[in-house]
Amino acid sequence: MDTPCGLDVSLSIVGGKWKPLILFHLQEGPTRFADVKRRVGGISEKVLIQQLRDLVEMNVLVRRDHQRVPPMVDYSLTPFGRTLVEALIPLCEWGTRNRATVAKLSRSTIDMET
Amino acid sequence: MDTPCGLDVSLSIVGGKWKPLILFHLQEGPTRFADVKRRVGGISEKVLIQQLRDLVEMNVLVRRDHQRVPPMVDYSLTPFGRTLVEALIPLCEWGTRNRATVAKLSRSTIDMET
Repeated sequence: MDTPCGLDVSLSIVGGKWKPLILFHLQEGPTRFADVKRRVGGISEKVLIQQLRDLVEMNVLVRRDHQRVPPMVDYSLTPFGRTLVEALIPLCEWGTRNRATVAKLSRSTIDMET
Repeated sequence: MDTPCGLDVSLSIVGGKWKPLILFHLQEGPTRFADVKRRVGGISEKVLIQQLRDLVEMNVLVRRDHQRVPPMVDYSLTPFGRTLVEALIPLCEWGTRNRATVAKLSRSTIDMET
């Protein structure tokens, strides 16, 4: 079904807890696995590997293995991925700006129900 | 936890299938229940009532009962809701623009796995 709001499409790629954060932290350019992990924070190695793999499969990120010893692998946004990040930023910023307001509203909603 | 991307906050309000569509269709101004239902399309009365109630509770929409017979009730965006819609539009548009590309990528990912 074609709808005027394609948010379902965007969220099929970037939905969930980690992917928006990963993309957010890759804006500066190619980033090594260990640095992604450190910047995102609180994510296990296993989960991060899977999230990165999903984003590579969807052509949002590109993975480069520099064929060195010790191994050096980094991830960067594709041009396609960059368009997604640009579209995502306003909603990220809205959430950050309104975190306290929304928490208060959620609490008062719960209060009304109890 | 405070993160640089507040998408979790935004999606706590506008996540799910219907809410982005409802907000999208309320941009033009106060809209009567029956018109919201018709514009959104494919939504049951029961589900729409619950979605609208959630959005009113979160101060995104305001419900006005015009105290007429027959009843006339309409919904409109609050100033707070309007800021959310503005932040949401780029990600809606990205999804609409890339629906075909994403569908193709999803299919080829499935092909690779089978």
